[in-house]
Amino acid sequence: MYGLMQREPINLVSILGHAARWHPHQEVVTNTVEGGIHRQSYSDTYVRATRLANRLQRYGIEKGDRVGTLGWNTYRHLESWYAIAGIGAVCHTVNPRLFPEQIKLIVNHAQDRLLVVDLTFADLIREALPDLPSVEAVIFMCRGDDMPDVGGWARPVYCYERWVGEGEDRIEWPALAHDAASSLCYTSGTTGDPKGVLYSHRGNLLHAYALSMPDVLGIAANETLLMVVPMFHANSWGLAYAGPMAGAKLVLPGPHMDGKSIAELINGENVTKAAAVPTVWTMLLGHLRTGETGLDSLKEVGIGGSAVPRAMIEEFRNDYGVNVVHIWGMTEMTPLGTVSRPKPSMAGLGDEQLLLAKCKQGRVPFGVDMKIVDDAGRALPHDGRTFGRLLVKGPWTIERYYRSDESALTDGWFDTGDIATIDEHGFMQVTDRSKDVIKSGGEWISSVAIENAVMGLEGVEIAACIGAKHPKWDERPIVLVKRGADSQISKNEIIGELSAHLAKWQLPDAIVFVDAIPLTATGKIDKKPLRAAYGNCLLQ
Amino acid sequence: MYGLMQREPINLVSILGHAARWHPHQEVVTNTVEGGIHRQSYSDTYVRATRLANRLQRYGIEKGDRVGTLGWNTYRHLESWYAIAGIGAVCHTVNPRLFPEQIKLIVNHAQDRLLVVDLTFADLIREALPDLPSVEAVIFMCRGDDMPDVGGWARPVYCYERWVGEGEDRIEWPALAHDAASSLCYTSGTTGDPKGVLYSHRGNLLHAYALSMPDVLGIAANETLLMVVPMFHANSWGLAYAGPMAGAKLVLPGPHMDGKSIAELINGENVTKAAAVPTVWTMLLGHLRTGETGLDSLKEVGIGGSAVPRAMIEEFRNDYGVNVVHIWGMTEMTPLGTVSRPKPSMAGLGDEQLLLAKCKQGRVPFGVDMKIVDDAGRALPHDGRTFGRLLVKGPWTIERYYRSDESALTDGWFDTGDIATIDEHGFMQVTDRSKDVIKSGGEWISSVAIENAVMGLEGVEIAACIGAKHPKWDERPIVLVKRGADSQISKNEIIGELSAHLAKWQLPDAIVFVDAIPLTATGKIDKKPLRAAYGNCLLQ
Repeated sequence: MYGLMQREPINLVSILGHAARWHPHQEVVTNTVEGGIHRQSYSDTYVRATRLANRLQRYGIEKGDRVGTLGWNTYRHLESWYAIAGIGAVCHTVNPRLFPEQIKLIVNHAQDRLLVVDLTFADLIREALPDLPSVEAVIFMCRGDDMPDVGGWARPVYCYERWVGEGEDRIEWPALAHDAASSLCYTSGTTGDPKGVLYSHRGNLLHAYALSMPDVLGIAANETLLMVVPMFHANSWGLAYAGPMAGAKLVLPGPHMDGKSIAELINGENVTKAAAVPTVWTMLLGHLRTGETGLDSLKEVGIGGSAVPRAMIEEFRNDYGVNVVHIWGMTEMTPLGTVSRPKPSMAGLGDEQLLLAKCKQGRVPFGVDMKIVDDAGRALPHDGRTFGRLLVKGPWTIERYYRSDESALTDGWFDTGDIATIDEHGFMQVTDRSKDVIKSGGEWISSVAIENAVMGLEGVEIAACIGAKHPKWDERPIVLVKRGADSQISKNEIIGELSAHLAKWQLPDAIVFVDAIPLTATGKIDKKPLRAAYGNCLLQ
Repeated sequence: MYGLMQREPINLVSILGHAARWHPHQEVVTNTVEGGIHRQSYSDTYVRATRLANRLQRYGIEKGDRVGTLGWNTYRHLESWYAIAGIGAVCHTVNPRLFPEQIKLIVNHAQDRLLVVDLTFADLIREALPDLPSVEAVIFMCRGDDMPDVGGWARPVYCYERWVGEGEDRIEWPALAHDAASSLCYTSGTTGDPKGVLYSHRGNLLHAYALSMPDVLGIAANETLLMVVPMFHANSWGLAYAGPMAGAKLVLPGPHMDGKSIAELINGENVTKAAAVPTVWTMLLGHLRTGETGLDSLKEVGIGGSAVPRAMIEEFRNDYGVNVVHIWGMTEMTPLGTVSRPKPSMAGLGDEQLLLAKCKQGRVPFGVDMKIVDDAGRALPHDGRTFGRLLVKGPWTIERYYRSDESALTDGWFDTGDIATIDEHGFMQVTDRSKDVIKSGGEWISSVAIENAVMGLEGVEIAACIGAKHPKWDERPIVLVKRGADSQISKNEIIGELSAHLAKWQLPDAIVFVDAIPLTATGKIDKKPLRAAYGNCLLQ
């Protein structure tokens, strides 16, 4: 039997419509690409999104068509998101920091018909265009005066502001299915087939509600939300929906993500909550240490994308009175997975224990379920020590990748590729990527735990732990260490220090001093060349 | 194009499953029908709901079947809600305070197969059973020892705890449609055809997320939520879903809603947030005035069901430091409509203006849209003065009544039957039920505004304003006044005082002193006999 409530599926553009109708004067503030602060209201934003949507329809964009964007966090990019999804097309956010070959690969895989781009990427686009057969035209997010010279370009080029001017300010937003696609984001995997995650209106809607909850980000109309997390990364954590849903003031940094610019934006706009990856906060804290300014309005930062260093949580708390909320998620999860917001069951913990809990990735809101399993798929206990593969499911977790015929699930669960523990409070902690776990005689050893222990030693500049093949144990941990200048720390000293933190069978079989540890383009340790060079060293 | 997120519709029982899995030790506390406090965890509650669901299935309850409940707010009633909806049946909450004839009418209209009832209602049920042909059996929410004598009853009678004991603790919850019916509640209309509101899993789910938002009730795991609002009234405001969704501690008063019992429950369980109708708070404040106790843990009360008196907001704030949130909704809206949570646009208002805003019904969360219209359906301005019919829509607003072939909507909007203003901040204020508006020469006059003004005068005990037929103006307001003992206030004095608050054309044409004002069973002024007696008094 069906309920007799109103059944019309919710189009995401109705979130912006709600903001325009009930928080019409609330601001969207942008530190623009062209330079200078731009302000407009939710009411303006909705009208401009409507005009753009109308113009896109007149151009011939239809339901299901992909429209790519290469843009910073700006009001125009925000309008584009809502306009494109609002007419039932798919907003494909392309990460402009990828290599040109990767950009071509995913634009061609997505078959984007149009690209809506920021001026910053003019050269990139001009050079790529001949290799992007599906792309019919390019729209630059700027005014006519700022248009680049596009003589000789391989495709027609339009001006965003002209399009907005040409569109009507009224539209009949189409009726969509509950599960209609809204947007598309490729995972950052740099090898193999491109993996596109096709978000839905339903998933994004539930996700935005969940983000608003007090135990997640707690977004209210009286918050001013700085959305540093790029709109081309993992759906920008859903903040582009959750902010307007609550009627919060939205502050967008454009391309200006250095510490000084972020500090000025926070203080200039009285930002109360902000979300970004650790790198951005490292730059901000570095700038603040100059003593030039504080952070008076800021109450809380959400940090995700990689594990939050304990020192960062402490520095924010002790020096600026800012609460850090650790957020974990992934592109395949729209992306919210867990949040490290303390629970009543933790009321008895002391400061140190609470701090350790905040260093964990945290607990799930309703809408995400998770479990850890062993290699046979058996669920493992929530004791905070046992680690296993982390599986997730829920209405905003992927079912399959774009243009894939195969489900990405096993028995309804998605394997995150992470190895994690879950403690008695339900707090999950990622210990490794599963490919980084060392399997020694049927036991799993966390390479990240060893790495962190070694990196914490004085005299060690950077260290990497990998599994080396072993005749008896299958794999055993070895550690590559780059010592700091003037450091004379010895292998025995390192092993000795590690003994305090690790069980005997977890201690590395070898310590190798090296001159350099290779890093990936995003600054993470690149273990591939290390495995190639040292993976057989225990067999010799 | 469809998104590629996981599509499985969400069964409401998964909310309780989430609470059991991620907040297993969090408590559900009940001031029981039998007497004494009962405690169990979310984990217990889920297992018991599972057992009950299994037993219901074994009995033969199938998807779409209606199971009625007549119960107080207790853990058993909570379990029943989840168990019944979880197996795809419909939980029909019957208001046990209705007259027996009304109860028969709606149970027969709903065609309930089973009735799950509290001991309190044994006599009521026994007498009604012969007239309830669809009801196959009755289950008493008690232990075997507490079962009433059911010799000679018209139908088989079972013991709830025995059923829970007989059910298996594992179940495959069925897959349901997005819009599957979850529950059924009849509006309190005492005349005409019964009007059943058939709630959906989807509507309840979105509604629970919205309730959790910081600008609505702000429900977090560290809150202790006292749910006084009866589970047989308007879906108990959705709190039975929103509480477990957040992992909040849930406190249920059972039948004990007097001021002393509520105060003891709040203080004994460290309740932080509570929701009830004004009558309950009047009783609580009355009890507190004895000076026996304070309200140390309580931070906020949500009050709805009828307009919140300004004095109540002030007393809570000034004497107990408790914030009052005015909530407006209706059975047809699952029931959340608006909340009077201040907005940033009101930051410049002084204390008095803010207090007046809090007396309004407030603003919509995302998921409700509203507008005020004139008799021709034209939208009216949001100026805080113009009043019109209040129309609403959204995914948890009714489309049609149960077993009705007709949509309850006009152009997609549901007419609430209320007359309201909306101010520049989006704050709605109900001024009248539309049947209580007096239409004088094309202008609308608020009978409630006149009533309130008269009731505010010293010497007036109670007053009622109705529209009396008028040869020229169609209708004109007249006021029936019962003076207080010893009061000598005159008609002229009343008119004189009203002139300060009302425009001349809004002033009543007659003041009639009466010995009594008739009230309905729920304590509201009953205008029907007054209209019959005085509606023609201006024609004579």
